[in-house]
Amino acid sequence: MIEVLRLGHRISRDKRISTHVALVARTFGASRLYYTGQKDGEMESSVCKIVSKFGGDFSVEHVKDFKKLFLGKKIVHLTMYGDDFSKYVGKIKGNVLVVVGGEKVPGEIYSLSDYNLGVGNQPHSEVAALAVFLDHFNKFKFPKFKGKLNVVPNIKGKKIFKKE
Amino acid sequence: MIEVLRLGHRISRDKRISTHVALVARTFGASRLYYTGQKDGEMESSVCKIVSKFGGDFSVEHVKDFKKLFLGKKIVHLTMYGDDFSKYVGKIKGNVLVVVGGEKVPGEIYSLSDYNLGVGNQPHSEVAALAVFLDHFNKFKFPKFKGKLNVVPNIKGKKIFKKE
Repeated sequence: MIEVLRLGHRISRDKRISTHVALVARTFGASRLYYTGQKDGEMESSVCKIVSKFGGDFSVEHVKDFKKLFLGKKIVHLTMYGDDFSKYVGKIKGNVLVVVGGEKVPGEIYSLSDYNLGVGNQPHSEVAALAVFLDHFNKFKFPKFKGKLNVVPNIKGKKIFKKE
Repeated sequence: MIEVLRLGHRISRDKRISTHVALVARTFGASRLYYTGQKDGEMESSVCKIVSKFGGDFSVEHVKDFKKLFLGKKIVHLTMYGDDFSKYVGKIKGNVLVVVGGEKVPGEIYSLSDYNLGVGNQPHSEVAALAVFLDHFNKFKFPKFKGKLNVVPNIKGKKIFKKE
């Protein structure tokens, strides 16, 4: 089981980034996004709409105390300061919680995590880091979804199969 | 040479997403981000600051007519409707322009592009799609940067090497 924790959501600034984090988590096989910071009904609702159209049972949950989520899981904190993720990603087993910041990541996250891993040691994007980490974690396979809407892959245009 | 084009930037809504697109492009080896839509000095400046600290010669350029960029390049449009990118990514050679939306992608982009490729056929994130595509395109290697600030990869905390 893979879940994702997004730290320190701020409604005004992070709405779209956190939505992208959630949708990436779903696309790359995580079952849930937890988030701390400000509770954001609009962000939750926009993710839920996608899930109801495109399938799967992904959910979003606001939490106040993230530490209780850490029990019994391998904690993978993605940070630009971390060690090269590709050295570890094939060895991580069990229930995994992938943690992404947040403008200001509490210092204790570094010591509470089993792995502080960098996807490139450059400043870029928690959305990108999460996607690339999960892509490697899944050995470059995507999970299958069956929704009301299903994209039919097409090299030239748009095709959608609607299940009535 | 790899460059990236981000379509339809809107200052109010896309500032952070477009910044992430730019920083991902840089981290994964592209030399430039072009963007259409509203010209955004603040977004350009925040990317330039990162480049001046962390190195490389990445640049950002606002363009009005994106079609002139298409001459002499292989155009790879990343879209949730596209064909599985992993079938094509190893075969794309020459100067490459990777195109990402944008809320509303002009329909002609599909016919002007050499490849319309999906990174998962689910709605998620242009930031994530770009990162995963470039990661595969680069055969899972990151380019090296030498900046004033250089992260020293670390499994437990933060280490930065400052070049005076």
